[in-house]
Amino acid sequence: MLRCAVIGAKGYTGLEIAELLLKHPDVTISYLADMDDKPVMLKEYLPHISPKVDLQIAKYDFDEIGEKSDVVFLALPHRVSLLYAEQFLNKNAVVIDLSADYRFKKVAVYEKWYDKKHTSKHLLKDAVYGLSELNKEAISKAQLIANPGCFPTGSILGLAPLLRNELIKTEGIVIDAKTGVSGAGRNPSAANHFGELHENFKAYKVNVHQHSPEIVDQLNALSKEEVKITFVPHLLPLSRGILSTIYVERKNGVTESKIHSAYEKFYKESIFIRLKAKGTSPQLKDVAYTNFCDIGVTVDAKSNRVIIITAIDNLLKGAAGQAVQNMNIRCGFAEDCGFFE
Amino acid sequence: MLRCAVIGAKGYTGLEIAELLLKHPDVTISYLADMDDKPVMLKEYLPHISPKVDLQIAKYDFDEIGEKSDVVFLALPHRVSLLYAEQFLNKNAVVIDLSADYRFKKVAVYEKWYDKKHTSKHLLKDAVYGLSELNKEAISKAQLIANPGCFPTGSILGLAPLLRNELIKTEGIVIDAKTGVSGAGRNPSAANHFGELHENFKAYKVNVHQHSPEIVDQLNALSKEEVKITFVPHLLPLSRGILSTIYVERKNGVTESKIHSAYEKFYKESIFIRLKAKGTSPQLKDVAYTNFCDIGVTVDAKSNRVIIITAIDNLLKGAAGQAVQNMNIRCGFAEDCGFFE
Amino acid sequence: MLRCAVIGAKGYTGLEIAELLLKHPDVTISYLADMDDKPVMLKEYLPHISPKVDLQIAKYDFDEIGEKSDVVFLALPHRVSLLYAEQFLNKNAVVIDLSADYRFKKVAVYEKWYDKKHTSKHLLKDAVYGLSELNKEAISKAQLIANPGCFPTGSILGLAPLLRNELIKTEGIVIDAKTGVSGAGRNPSAANHFGELHENFKAYKVNVHQHSPEIVDQLNALSKEEVKITFVPHLLPLSRGILSTIYVERKNGVTESKIHSAYEKFYKESIFIRLKAKGTSPQLKDVAYTNFCDIGVTVDAKSNRVIIITAIDNLLKGAAGQAVQNMNIRCGFAEDCGFFE
Amino acid sequence: MLRCAVIGAKGYTGLEIAELLLKHPDVTISYLADMDDKPVMLKEYLPHISPKVDLQIAKYDFDEIGEKSDVVFLALPHRVSLLYAEQFLNKNAVVIDLSADYRFKKVAVYEKWYDKKHTSKHLLKDAVYGLSELNKEAISKAQLIANPGCFPTGSILGLAPLLRNELIKTEGIVIDAKTGVSGAGRNPSAANHFGELHENFKAYKVNVHQHSPEIVDQLNALSKEEVKITFVPHLLPLSRGILSTIYVERKNGVTESKIHSAYEKFYKESIFIRLKAKGTSPQLKDVAYTNFCDIGVTVDAKSNRVIIITAIDNLLKGAAGQAVQNMNIRCGFAEDCGFFE
Repeated sequence: MLRCAVIGAKGYTGLEIAELLLKHPDVTISYLADMDDKPVMLKEYLPHISPKVDLQIAKYDFDEIGEKSDVVFLALPHRVSLLYAEQFLNKNAVVIDLSADYRFKKVAVYEKWYDKKHTSKHLLKDAVYGLSELNKEAISKAQLIANPGCFPTGSILGLAPLLRNELIKTEGIVIDAKTGVSGAGRNPSAANHFGELHENFKAYKVNVHQHSPEIVDQLNALSKEEVKITFVPHLLPLSRGILSTIYVERKNGVTESKIHSAYEKFYKESIFIRLKAKGTSPQLKDVAYTNFCDIGVTVDAKSNRVIIITAIDNLLKGAAGQAVQNMNIRCGFAEDCGFFE
Repeated sequence: MLRCAVIGAKGYTGLEIAELLLKHPDVTISYLADMDDKPVMLKEYLPHISPKVDLQIAKYDFDEIGEKSDVVFLALPHRVSLLYAEQFLNKNAVVIDLSADYRFKKVAVYEKWYDKKHTSKHLLKDAVYGLSELNKEAISKAQLIANPGCFPTGSILGLAPLLRNELIKTEGIVIDAKTGVSGAGRNPSAANHFGELHENFKAYKVNVHQHSPEIVDQLNALSKEEVKITFVPHLLPLSRGILSTIYVERKNGVTESKIHSAYEKFYKESIFIRLKAKGTSPQLKDVAYTNFCDIGVTVDAKSNRVIIITAIDNLLKGAAGQAVQNMNIRCGFAEDCGFFE
Repeated sequence: MLRCAVIGAKGYTGLEIAELLLKHPDVTISYLADMDDKPVMLKEYLPHISPKVDLQIAKYDFDEIGEKSDVVFLALPHRVSLLYAEQFLNKNAVVIDLSADYRFKKVAVYEKWYDKKHTSKHLLKDAVYGLSELNKEAISKAQLIANPGCFPTGSILGLAPLLRNELIKTEGIVIDAKTGVSGAGRNPSAANHFGELHENFKAYKVNVHQHSPEIVDQLNALSKEEVKITFVPHLLPLSRGILSTIYVERKNGVTESKIHSAYEKFYKESIFIRLKAKGTSPQLKDVAYTNFCDIGVTVDAKSNRVIIITAIDNLLKGAAGQAVQNMNIRCGFAEDCGFFE
Repeated sequence: MLRCAVIGAKGYTGLEIAELLLKHPDVTISYLADMDDKPVMLKEYLPHISPKVDLQIAKYDFDEIGEKSDVVFLALPHRVSLLYAEQFLNKNAVVIDLSADYRFKKVAVYEKWYDKKHTSKHLLKDAVYGLSELNKEAISKAQLIANPGCFPTGSILGLAPLLRNELIKTEGIVIDAKTGVSGAGRNPSAANHFGELHENFKAYKVNVHQHSPEIVDQLNALSKEEVKITFVPHLLPLSRGILSTIYVERKNGVTESKIHSAYEKFYKESIFIRLKAKGTSPQLKDVAYTNFCDIGVTVDAKSNRVIIITAIDNLLKGAAGQAVQNMNIRCGFAEDCGFFE
């Protein structure tokens, strides 16, 4: 049995990881850690699990965690993971970090967007960006996996087949993303106030969201030419899910069937990617509480635009689910092990 | 007192018109008409109005309506208005039609998108497209006003200052629109089933929505060059409002300040248009239950894109409110007469 | 014109009062006060009002308020009003207080439930409990009006006709109340966190809510025998409204028709009370954004129970609306002046 | 492996059963039946299951179903099950019926409330009412299990310990129940129209709901004296769950601790019943998507009332979950087999 620890186990993401690990047939939870002094029962935070589960969330004890764990999930705020990753690596644990701290090869980009000096730059070189469908080979050998952000996951999965096959122009890419509220976390704030969200809808951080450089970075890795995007996130009055509507211009001579077969080929072996039949469109309730990414592609012959719509659960494929999928890849399990019954 | 009739008074739009007319100081309601044989009290359908209002919604009597009314609002389904408009025009009433039947100068476009032979084409020449802020002069003299669709209202108001002043390229315009559920009307269907909408979000009619040609038609009227758009509507889990996020490319040499001042100048005298301060963004709850259109404009220097976000109430500025605003313009009242206390 | 001031004008209740006063034909707003140093425009907080309204919310200046105002609305937290009411009374203003501070004749009850020493007890004797339909005569002469709580308003209006006419037993009264979220105010907290409310429903303060003694107090004033109630509030995933389902036992020999006619007679002249026809039931969307209280009464012959259901908007009939209704009564206007167009 | 069939597999309840059976380690699905001619893939209706599941929902073939199945779940409308149950019993299958057709021992009560002649009365004698926690012994031997209604499940579980131990008066029991929308099924109607539900709340079928006689029937079986209840259901703007607030009067001399220990003892071995700690209250989000019934009990010393609050998921503990729990009991599996990972 693989021994797994979760650091930051009381946050939305940490709890989702714990719930997935509980369902996993080849995994045992070695430690659930948090900052509070007083331990609490996991089932107080996860009312849906069996009453027989008597795991606790207890205060960090790094030595104990390191010794007892083969895999350590860091479900910590941005800027905090970079303080802790190394000590678990030193104990030979695989570290799967869900913050942004190891996602950027260029320190300057990270430091600008997260307004924080990076204190463990030497780890960046070997960190692998954990977008499971794209980097499977590298993930399977990585010691430090930088789990992608929620918006980047939905955006990059939608664009990868087109960029890799050079079917579209790399300028003028528009990503109009809409997210549920759970991304705003557990602490009460204006961002999750019922009166601000219910019967409301709005854009936020228009063109200045910190996921923008992460998307650009990864799209550039897929593309020969430099990519330029416009990224606008919006806030939906619902709990879970991100739907991204992506607009691009196809290159001259690229046919509709070429586009569709690029997707089919690219995701042929990806169990969590579901391509929608022509004329149908992804919707959030199909992917909520799953690790799926549904993708629909429409070609507008008149304007030469391709419209790609992707739908994910922000807490699963956009965070905890992809982290466990990466653990499966890294540790030699089937990619969907523990996700279905 | 101006005598006004509403045909189709039991639908969401017809009721909104009735409610606005009740509040209007210079108007009296001469007739509320519907197809049912049995008359019902208006207040059964509008529980918020004064118990003292004893108006009825009664069966159509066209002669009586024509004789008793200076203005007739047609709040009827598409393809039905074209059967009835003429008889009221013949009685010298001003007709404000809320369907699509008189919005297109080119009959072929209408007949293609609405799949219906147009049986009163001779009226099209003099029909005026009732986008109040753009066509004020013509509206003030029109006998037949074709009230705009909800999506076109939000889209065109967002683009007009840029197109009229030739500040943007006319290709590659992307309109990503999100609407509340009230647009789907009162009759139960999959489109307004709670289980299909609550905790869900999706695109629909991707690039094939019937409002697309209406938008193109009107944008072309504003622009010297032919306009090409990609239009994708989405369905929000809330009742009222349309938020449209519009992406365009500015022409070379057009500065940010030039863009902002184009909006300020264009809407200087438009009481229902509110331009958001730089860095802030429209939101649906600010415009719900109002006739406002809020507009936010962001320039992305890196990609040369301009992002315009507009927010309206689909039943008011997108239908009933604009119809009454047009009545005000046509009949010589202040544009906002009856809207505020 | 009557000159009115609102103290606490940035809270949900204070803003509702301001909006009602704006619509009132015989009133002018003399002052909108708040604690912040920096004045803000009212329309920033009330996006639905006319852009022409240029009122400000400014810092308290008690002398100025007192001199410029005939009526002062105190929309302040419990325990704060008792510090301020007297100075406005001394300036001969009518004070309408929306907190609990002047609702109890017995100081001990107040001090127990609100855990605060009452520092202006001498004002209690002349304070009038402002449940408009019950105390119209006294309200019309009061200098200090204690506006009722939201739950008490819905509960007492439902029970008054039965208790006043001695038609029911006074023991075993059950009040099962369900409220929208707006009652939890504007400051972010667990009580208004989207993730805690959306797709959730729960009871809270079971049998220990501070509105319980207020209800008992007022029911006792209506009844010859002492009243015993069980009161359980619940939290709904919606913004506005309180629906109260009340269960009582009729006295022997009291017929169904006697019960219904008691309601009709009692509320014969109450424009804001609407009795539902037999077999129909109140619903929140009929009263939201209105000052109405809808009441439905069902008699269960088998168990001798009477089921009374009342629906109000918690911010209007349950707070700001009733306050303005009381102002109308006190100042000689029609009771519904300013509420309808 | 136990072979299980679901008749009515496209309804909300049938799909929930199918999803639970898929997760069950000792069960194989032998048939998923529906009325439509054209077979469809189960995963089109259950987007959350593994893409590898290639089960179909196909048209009824009763002979085949009978031969291939050890257990047949009837997820059919009321009045339809009574046409089909017998043929599966004749093939020696265990039949678990989720309609009301076999819940009543007294035919007259059924025929009155469901307005239908009962055509297979001879089966009623041996049918067992499948409230798992109460009738475990009988369920374990039953051939025909009448699965309880959703409201009865929540109500009876809340009252059973008090009635069985004669701790409360049997008159004047009030059950104020609030249900989510999923109970109203998949077909579009006014009962599940977004505009009728969102931002709304109301009671319905006040004191005339068909679950009322079912509750009375079962409570009488638990009690020495005849039980009288008042039952009022309400409709919540959310998808899943029923919260029931139940008000009873304790008998003289019954202490609070006696009441609490009655619950503890009664449910000592019931893994799906969770008793809330004193001072805390059940909430729907804790039981949504689970088979739990959470119960909170409060004693009001002043009025001698006991307030019991129960929370269940209407589609699981109130329907499909309890059906599978009953299958577990009947077929010798652990009661929670297949429910947790």
